[in-house]
Amino acid sequence: MESAIPDHLVTTRTRHRRVPDDYAPPYPSYVARSATSVRQVVMAYLGLQHDGDDPPPGLLAPIDAALAAADGPGHHDRARGDGETVSIAYWDDPEQFDRWWDAHRDSWLGDGVRDGNGRWAEVLRPTVEEHETLFSSTGRPEGVAVLAEGLSGEVQEHGYWGGMRDRIPLSQTDAMAPVGEPVVERDGGRVRVRPQHAACLIRSGQDWTDTDGAERVMYLEEVEPVLRAGMDFLRDEGSAVGCRTNRYLTVVEDARPVDRTFGMSWWRSLDALERWSESHPTHVAIFGAAMRYLTTTGPSARLRLYHEVSVAAADEQYFEYVDCRPGTGLSGNG
Amino acid sequence: MESAIPDHLVTTRTRHRRVPDDYAPPYPSYVARSATSVRQVVMAYLGLQHDGDDPPPGLLAPIDAALAAADGPGHHDRARGDGETVSIAYWDDPEQFDRWWDAHRDSWLGDGVRDGNGRWAEVLRPTVEEHETLFSSTGRPEGVAVLAEGLSGEVQEHGYWGGMRDRIPLSQTDAMAPVGEPVVERDGGRVRVRPQHAACLIRSGQDWTDTDGAERVMYLEEVEPVLRAGMDFLRDEGSAVGCRTNRYLTVVEDARPVDRTFGMSWWRSLDALERWSESHPTHVAIFGAAMRYLTTTGPSARLRLYHEVSVAAADEQYFEYVDCRPGTGLSGNG
Repeated sequence: MESAIPDHLVTTRTRHRRVPDDYAPPYPSYVARSATSVRQVVMAYLGLQHDGDDPPPGLLAPIDAALAAADGPGHHDRARGDGETVSIAYWDDPEQFDRWWDAHRDSWLGDGVRDGNGRWAEVLRPTVEEHETLFSSTGRPEGVAVLAEGLSGEVQEHGYWGGMRDRIPLSQTDAMAPVGEPVVERDGGRVRVRPQHAACLIRSGQDWTDTDGAERVMYLEEVEPVLRAGMDFLRDEGSAVGCRTNRYLTVVEDARPVDRTFGMSWWRSLDALERWSESHPTHVAIFGAAMRYLTTTGPSARLRLYHEVSVAAADEQYFEYVDCRPGTGLSGNG
Repeated sequence: MESAIPDHLVTTRTRHRRVPDDYAPPYPSYVARSATSVRQVVMAYLGLQHDGDDPPPGLLAPIDAALAAADGPGHHDRARGDGETVSIAYWDDPEQFDRWWDAHRDSWLGDGVRDGNGRWAEVLRPTVEEHETLFSSTGRPEGVAVLAEGLSGEVQEHGYWGGMRDRIPLSQTDAMAPVGEPVVERDGGRVRVRPQHAACLIRSGQDWTDTDGAERVMYLEEVEPVLRAGMDFLRDEGSAVGCRTNRYLTVVEDARPVDRTFGMSWWRSLDALERWSESHPTHVAIFGAAMRYLTTTGPSARLRLYHEVSVAAADEQYFEYVDCRPGTGLSGNG
């Protein structure tokens, strides 16, 4: 058993963990372990809006070319949902990202490519103190963990409410309280958002590729509909609980959906995300459905779960929307 | 909105609350407010074992006489379940209790009254720093709250996991970690238990007296069976999660059961109670059923919920069992 906080990020605590030192989690989980040289990562969500499920032919060519160019991301994937196709790209060197963004931003968001389809970028660059990951099983990293050296052994800080916070190294000394509100700055069809301090982003995914038989049926018929209802609540009514935007996306590979989905949501604060997760009827239902599933399938469960959570300072966030639908992301009501 | 911790018990914190200062609970709850002169209370659970639901005629006469005598409790009630009838008595002056116990202990546990029926006493005397209460509605105090001056206004520290701990004043400075294990000392049919440090007792009750129609049916058919399953789990398999004993009791008035029940359980630690409550399938099911009930009935719900939780030092606990069934309370397996 090891701490989710790697040795080189351990500091003298002014704040306690929620569990005692002898806490033993009820099942194993793992976290990504980055090289100690990594100090900050970049997570770029680059969205294209279109009618229907599939993007119009050719519209993703510029971003595909950019992702393959010099200084491109160490890892990227793609997902879609609600008439958006989102490319998600990860760097573990902010300077490399900055060079890449300077070279390719205009091919995505410049005036020269405005064609009526909305395009957007939501980019954050949390330090290693400001983010955490969690995986239910080993062998298939997703998201920022693909950049890491590997996964940890079994970690202690999970399986209880508050584990997410306790896995973020900054929680040793900081409550991560939000300051301010995002400010929308509109210039015609172009919207930028001046960020608040300590906004929180979660990407939380599920991979049912390996399931079959009764387990697959149970996931699709008993878990997924409850998860979807929670995702819809966050999208449509999330502002009441501090969720600024939520997307429930299906991963696509070779332009086809695969058996992997994730929710991606921006929150006013880590605290707001904690409160919804722990006590809102929509997430209590998700938690209950997942618990019944895992209790039924037992240790042989082949559903894979993961998430990554970041709490970023204002100058570590970037939001830009061009010709997007009203209400896209943090862009306000149009 | 006020803190559950009364002003006169506020100290300089070395440990933080789990929620930020601007936390707003999703529904109102209240706590008991004692006179500032009260420094410590006594909670005495006095059990009689018998066949069937009803105690044999006359066997409760000695305890009834004692409860009515000089130095008797400020409040007591009675409940039954699993072949036990338990009188629960509360004092807000430990010296008064000590005088009462000296005068009446032998009438309950002395060799002179041994008749084959098991009798026991589980007594704790937490300081005001070491216990908390919670009520879902005003107007009908139960348990230790009957001794209080009244209920608070709406308090802040509830509606999130960790609120129980945050309501206990000692949590401002102390993790309330357990030390040691209870040690059973047997002398024939008489068993005493040397207590551990920081054992935790919860009495957690529900009162459906005021419900009718669909609300009553929903409580009895959808909530109560799930609650009972959780209570049975704690009674039969609780040791795996740190629950040393659990009784699920129905309040009796004039020897007849009324529409009020409570669970009464001893835990290895407050932490163990937290872990079960938050993540064990049996309590997640209870929480889910209660949430569906409260979501359906809304603010007009007439079910009343309350609990009282104490974390007591070793010298604030007393356990004695005479001729009891194997496994009674903390008496071990006989």
